[in-house]
Amino acid sequence: MTNVGPRYCVGVREHFMIAHSFRGEVFGPAQRLHGATYVVDVEMCRPSLDADGVVVDIGRAGAALKAVLAQLDFRNLDDEPAFRGVNTTTEFLAHAVFDRFAARIAAGELGDGARGLTSMRVTLNESHVAWASYEAPLAVPR
Amino acid sequence: MTNVGPRYCVGVREHFMIAHSFRGEVFGPAQRLHGATYVVDVEMCRPSLDADGVVVDIGRAGAALKAVLAQLDFRNLDDEPAFRGVNTTTEFLAHAVFDRFAARIAAGELGDGARGLTSMRVTLNESHVAWASYEAPLAVPR
Amino acid sequence: MTNVGPRYCVGVREHFMIAHSFRGEVFGPAQRLHGATYVVDVEMCRPSLDADGVVVDIGRAGAALKAVLAQLDFRNLDDEPAFRGVNTTTEFLAHAVFDRFAARIAAGELGDGARGLTSMRVTLNESHVAWASYEAPLAVPR
Amino acid sequence: MTNVGPRYCVGVREHFMIAHSFRGEVFGPAQRLHGATYVVDVEMCRPSLDADGVVVDIGRAGAALKAVLAQLDFRNLDDEPAFRGVNTTTEFLAHAVFDRFAARIAAGELGDGARGLTSMRVTLNESHVAWASYEAPLAVPR
Amino acid sequence: MTNVGPRYCVGVREHFMIAHSFRGEVFGPAQRLHGATYVVDVEMCRPSLDADGVVVDIGRAGAALKAVLAQLDFRNLDDEPAFRGVNTTTEFLAHAVFDRFAARIAAGELGDGARGLTSMRVTLNESHVAWASYEAPLAVPR
Amino acid sequence: MTNVGPRYCVGVREHFMIAHSFRGEVFGPAQRLHGATYVVDVEMCRPSLDADGVVVDIGRAGAALKAVLAQLDFRNLDDEPAFRGVNTTTEFLAHAVFDRFAARIAAGELGDGARGLTSMRVTLNESHVAWASYEAPLAVPR
Repeated sequence: MTNVGPRYCVGVREHFMIAHSFRGEVFGPAQRLHGATYVVDVEMCRPSLDADGVVVDIGRAGAALKAVLAQLDFRNLDDEPAFRGVNTTTEFLAHAVFDRFAARIAAGELGDGARGLTSMRVTLNESHVAWASYEAPLAVPR
Repeated sequence: MTNVGPRYCVGVREHFMIAHSFRGEVFGPAQRLHGATYVVDVEMCRPSLDADGVVVDIGRAGAALKAVLAQLDFRNLDDEPAFRGVNTTTEFLAHAVFDRFAARIAAGELGDGARGLTSMRVTLNESHVAWASYEAPLAVPR
Repeated sequence: MTNVGPRYCVGVREHFMIAHSFRGEVFGPAQRLHGATYVVDVEMCRPSLDADGVVVDIGRAGAALKAVLAQLDFRNLDDEPAFRGVNTTTEFLAHAVFDRFAARIAAGELGDGARGLTSMRVTLNESHVAWASYEAPLAVPR
Repeated sequence: MTNVGPRYCVGVREHFMIAHSFRGEVFGPAQRLHGATYVVDVEMCRPSLDADGVVVDIGRAGAALKAVLAQLDFRNLDDEPAFRGVNTTTEFLAHAVFDRFAARIAAGELGDGARGLTSMRVTLNESHVAWASYEAPLAVPR
Repeated sequence: MTNVGPRYCVGVREHFMIAHSFRGEVFGPAQRLHGATYVVDVEMCRPSLDADGVVVDIGRAGAALKAVLAQLDFRNLDDEPAFRGVNTTTEFLAHAVFDRFAARIAAGELGDGARGLTSMRVTLNESHVAWASYEAPLAVPR
Repeated sequence: MTNVGPRYCVGVREHFMIAHSFRGEVFGPAQRLHGATYVVDVEMCRPSLDADGVVVDIGRAGAALKAVLAQLDFRNLDDEPAFRGVNTTTEFLAHAVFDRFAARIAAGELGDGARGLTSMRVTLNESHVAWASYEAPLAVPR
């Protein structure tokens, strides 16, 4: 963190519940159809606060996260066209949630202020002993 | 608790990950094939400690719990003969884990001392905001 | 627990954020106007499952809990007529949430099946190191 | 819980860190000198609130718990005269903390109101996957 | 993290409870006087350990954090001169706690060794589903 | 995080229980022989997924972590030759676990894919209110 400048972050938590299976011997018994609850933490960061004095409108952020997860929740991911031919591992899904959430930010769904967000981290907690995350800078659309 | 005598309890935590679907309009989108991570808490109780000065051999209890959950883990419960025709709700599964664990206690798998256990509670945490449990006295086989 | 029969419980978690102050020297600095986030756990229990194979319709239970908490959330409890002249301690509020939630059960808001609930526990977590609860049998209206 | 009357409970959390070893083959590698952090939850219950409208003066309860744990904290329990010849298992220590805390209640250290407490539960969390508790009615001294 | 060098961090947790209100339509019902419990995590980092072999004297760090929070605890922030005219959002308060704690480090309150700290992160958890943080390099006074 | 590129991380949790004592007045009562449970979080990161579409084979990572901790678990660290003459503080132990785990990665114990890991963070949680971590880039052996 020595070479990282100041930043504020805000985090929100939601969850979704899916079925899926993996292909590849490395996955052992997880090659069978099974499922998971993913408790999702989204952290959005920026170097300074927006005009309202916040990182992001947390109400809109929560609504956007619910909308993203509603398209995954209570589904068998093996049947989702968007995930055809890929292993929907926890790390893969963290990236997928990141991309879908970032698209909503870019589309203005979290308000104009949210365009000042510079980075985001999405963590999927799959149990009390395992989790995966994807984090990246946020491209700023103009 | 006013009319409940003294007791000791010991608890252990494990998890399992399954797919399933529910039948009945009350379940809404959970009628679709989906899944869950269940973080399982098993609490075993008795009014006094055994000859070794413990409620139960926690090593054996943990091994027995892993054995019980291994028969559920990484499976689609809709395909399990044991659960044919029933909705494998969280409360139902809490009872199923209770019964399977209690059978191992009765069979002596946790040692003779474990036959002194008088009650047990099994809690299945399905997310950070929802859980279900089943608790009951333990029948003492002789 | 030795003399308590079998039971199933289901729990749901929500939160609300309020301001209040206490009267009485025993409360020390909490006599000043301050506030709290209460993370609320409601556990509903019954000896056997309902016709749908559940303790309660968890969707309706969650909605009812949100409705109860919405009438407290983002308020200064010192100004609430319902709490005039009382100290809205954590234990007092646990009872207040219990009563309001039980009234909704009795009114049929959680469905007919919920009338089979026999007991309930409401816990208000006020920090990572303190909490209070109220539990009681549920009167069954007919 | 069907046959248990209404009650209020208040809980507080503290921790202590000790070294110890166990005697008996059932303890396996725990026969070696090792140690533990115990995160202690004390829940005190009663059927109705005291004259101040609380279960107990939570400030005094917290101070009493700190005082009890200070006599155990940062010690090798194998060297404590009070524990000579016993295995200081988690369940045993839960009972020991219960007794020491109950003695302070009986001595009036938590105030006169605390004499209305009717039961107490002490839980020692030894890791994220294991815990033990002791609960009992509280004798009311007069 | 690819371009960040090695570092050690130490974290401590405390909490405080306040009342406040926000101005601005974006805040919806939070414009009313309400309150919050903030569970505060302070993480202090540096590339190498100090002469005592630690990141910081954790006893002094804990005492300093308590001192910082004692000036906020059990207060209505709307009445605090230091916060006149600002919205005391979670992200704003994370920064305020950061600044007050950093000032104590700079003043030597955590010992000379603490002057080797190079960065700090302050996280305020406002519920089980929302939090905010502020992190920054620490200016080294000489 | 503004200047840090995209990365995936995977985390796993285990624990170990040890006795130890510290030398130096700064440690106060922790100079006495005492002990701790350390709940260990290991987070492994890389900029892109491996050929199997994961950050690391989580099964092998978990097994390697258990193997590392088994050499510390249920021991008095004051008697360990590897730690002679040093204070085994939480931050020191976080680094020790990091080094031992990194050596197993370098030795190929987590598979060839794990050689693509670029950074790692090891956090030791010593109680509900204190923790320490060590993080660093991972040297890539060839």
